[in-house]
Amino acid sequence: MAKYEILARQIKEQIERGIWLENEKLPSLRKQARQTGYSLMTVLHAYQMLESQGLISSHERSGFIVAAAARPASENKVQTAEAVSINDFVYEVLQASRDPHMFSLGFAYPDPALYPRHHLNKSIAAAAQQISLTSAMDNLPPGNPELRQIIAKRYAARGMNISPDEIVITAGALEALSLSLQSCTRPGDWVVIESPVFYGAMQALERLGLKAITVTVSPQNGLDIDALERAFQNHPVKACWLMSSFQNPAGYSLSDDKKKQIARLLKTYGVTLIEDDVYAELYAGQIPPLPIKHFVEDGNSLLCSSFSKSLVAGYRIGWVAAGHKSLDIQKQQLMSTLATSAPVQLSLVDYLSTKNYESHLKQLRKKLITRKKAMLACLETLLRNVATIHAQEGGYFLWIECQPHVNAMDIYREALRLHITIAPGKLFSLHDEFDHCFRLNASFELNEARLTLLKKLAGYIINITRSED
Amino acid sequence: MAKYEILARQIKEQIERGIWLENEKLPSLRKQARQTGYSLMTVLHAYQMLESQGLISSHERSGFIVAAAARPASENKVQTAEAVSINDFVYEVLQASRDPHMFSLGFAYPDPALYPRHHLNKSIAAAAQQISLTSAMDNLPPGNPELRQIIAKRYAARGMNISPDEIVITAGALEALSLSLQSCTRPGDWVVIESPVFYGAMQALERLGLKAITVTVSPQNGLDIDALERAFQNHPVKACWLMSSFQNPAGYSLSDDKKKQIARLLKTYGVTLIEDDVYAELYAGQIPPLPIKHFVEDGNSLLCSSFSKSLVAGYRIGWVAAGHKSLDIQKQQLMSTLATSAPVQLSLVDYLSTKNYESHLKQLRKKLITRKKAMLACLETLLRNVATIHAQEGGYFLWIECQPHVNAMDIYREALRLHITIAPGKLFSLHDEFDHCFRLNASFELNEARLTLLKKLAGYIINITRSED
Repeated sequence: MAKYEILARQIKEQIERGIWLENEKLPSLRKQARQTGYSLMTVLHAYQMLESQGLISSHERSGFIVAAAARPASENKVQTAEAVSINDFVYEVLQASRDPHMFSLGFAYPDPALYPRHHLNKSIAAAAQQISLTSAMDNLPPGNPELRQIIAKRYAARGMNISPDEIVITAGALEALSLSLQSCTRPGDWVVIESPVFYGAMQALERLGLKAITVTVSPQNGLDIDALERAFQNHPVKACWLMSSFQNPAGYSLSDDKKKQIARLLKTYGVTLIEDDVYAELYAGQIPPLPIKHFVEDGNSLLCSSFSKSLVAGYRIGWVAAGHKSLDIQKQQLMSTLATSAPVQLSLVDYLSTKNYESHLKQLRKKLITRKKAMLACLETLLRNVATIHAQEGGYFLWIECQPHVNAMDIYREALRLHITIAPGKLFSLHDEFDHCFRLNASFELNEARLTLLKKLAGYIINITRSED
Repeated sequence: MAKYEILARQIKEQIERGIWLENEKLPSLRKQARQTGYSLMTVLHAYQMLESQGLISSHERSGFIVAAAARPASENKVQTAEAVSINDFVYEVLQASRDPHMFSLGFAYPDPALYPRHHLNKSIAAAAQQISLTSAMDNLPPGNPELRQIIAKRYAARGMNISPDEIVITAGALEALSLSLQSCTRPGDWVVIESPVFYGAMQALERLGLKAITVTVSPQNGLDIDALERAFQNHPVKACWLMSSFQNPAGYSLSDDKKKQIARLLKTYGVTLIEDDVYAELYAGQIPPLPIKHFVEDGNSLLCSSFSKSLVAGYRIGWVAAGHKSLDIQKQQLMSTLATSAPVQLSLVDYLSTKNYESHLKQLRKKLITRKKAMLACLETLLRNVATIHAQEGGYFLWIECQPHVNAMDIYREALRLHITIAPGKLFSLHDEFDHCFRLNASFELNEARLTLLKKLAGYIINITRSED
């Protein structure tokens, strides 16, 4: 094969692999020659060959351009799971949510339109002015000192004295939870999780080779404390991963009395608490809920949270109030991600110290209440007699319980067809006991088009409920 | 205890824990009352009590201020390791490097002054303008599509056809390496690593419960290929973690011939390659080095890199060119950090598409050559007859081999006393065979003060070498 043919084949492959997109300009003759080591003449021959094959076209002023449709069409990325693991399925649901044309009721974050985007963008710009030579070092574990102090002050305002030294900044709450679990368990250890449960907990246990004991969270009564004690009695449980406020997906918040009971049990049985508190700011009344950690005396607890649900998704800044385990967590972090991005930490410091986070939160809470109310009223009408809709004070999730013979995976697939995502119960369970349930995100505004979609979906649910009655 | 005494004790504890710093303003009487639920009178009593104890002071206009020295002094954070694990010691060295008054010759990154800070900051500001409602979604795994395409084009310019679809953006190269290892091993599997080796590899193996086989990298000849083959023959090796260019810490780069030999061995024995290529851009000649991946035919290889060494530390943006393992890696990532920070990915897209990365790299390479030359000349004079200084083309590390009876930990401790950090050989070895070696970062400019420090350190090394001769 002649040199120009070899080069032409290479470039063809680059186009096929999507390295060069439609209508993009290829490197100039001179640049291509320099990069590849071929002569200008060889490069020209190769380009002419590609042109004759219709893959690129030559333009007087702009050089060689990749032709439209030069790349074979790739398959649609949103596919439907048949029999797959939780991990595969979580991946699928998240990928489906990326599509901007979806009505993302399966989304885990509040409507992005509720975030203070202009203020945040100003803070990013302000942080850009401040980044110094040593910023990378200042933001190594445990993370930016100012940010940790701001977080500590917010806890102090809720009556919790947590030192900035106990706080470690992480890549979102998920890293915080995962590092916390690593810090107090070894592969093979028993860990209590809720049921239904945030899927991240199941994934983390699977990844770390831990054994799960599930304790039921009912949407009416929350965590079953007797079952928790039985679990502690019957197994050498090392840690307990709980959400005491606005539990994902059931939405339930525990009373302070129940939190105290749990704290007592943890102490009695010597179990470490890992608390996922990411929805804590989204309360409905006047008083912010306290985490279980507040009632744990000996400090054998790790409280994880982030700004992703209350301020902005996509920054990936969370933290863990790790008490005496702070150093362990930092060392674990050095081994996994090393540190959290410096410019993003600095932006948050700017936002939290110069903008009005409190007034943003007040507005956010108000909007979430209004929108959830509207969604609830609408669904209660649409799904009367076919499903129970569990709605709690605070947060933005609705937990829909269909009749036992209904499979929420069918609803999930029909919803996708309608360009809606939902979060089917399968995502939140180790044992398939919530296959007839699904979680809806009620933070989005209802308009005519979305109402029409919801009606269609409700029609489908009514049909499959009745067809098998 | 009276209510005001309880509150005063709480606030005292907050000051002791560093939630409120010296000269900081406490919440106003009204705000404190609202947050704590106490009456204004109780809060006032509490503040007066703290004032009488000298912990805060009252100021006409600015309210109640935390007094200087109200918080007990905390211990110095830079401590010296005696007998500790690699993890503890890595943590210690990194913490020592945070101190801005240190001459950080133990630092793993180039001198931060060599990064194009102004252009990068402009790009952060530009990204701030572009962040949209859906940015969080666009930057979910596999990461920002434009960023992945830019990376693919840079590989194409070096003659490597890697599709953007094969690339996953990660939290630095460390996450890329760790996810890669997870994707092709299970606990108990055998993995080949180098010796001396980047400590992150040892940490990752330890964390994932993998068994290590070390293969020697000599500063004269690089990786011992025969030993590599013996390792493959004698153990069911699953993966091989290598740095083919500017190996950390020895600095060695393999010839293309050796890379081809390694590729053949990997194929013969069915071993997956995990390649750490973070120094690849810092070559000294005209031609960028190719990774081993380029010579691996069946695509059973994962190439990991980042912008941390060549553009900016602290952004924590890396990637893995994962071939057919791309989907596995993304699912692993969803379980550990979920995704990489959106604003930082967008800033890099702006920088790479609007600023001149190539001209920055050219300057950086030139500076690194000049500075390493100067450091080398200086050390060769200072350490004549007491140590061998291994310097290679490219990169910015010098590997110093003292006489066998010298313990580099002693040098490390003396250096710390002089406000210098070095990276002792202990960091880079499973079996203590480099206890007489240390790594120096030669990317810093030498000035009078730094020369004086180096002379003092060299004096110490000469002393301990002779005292035991």
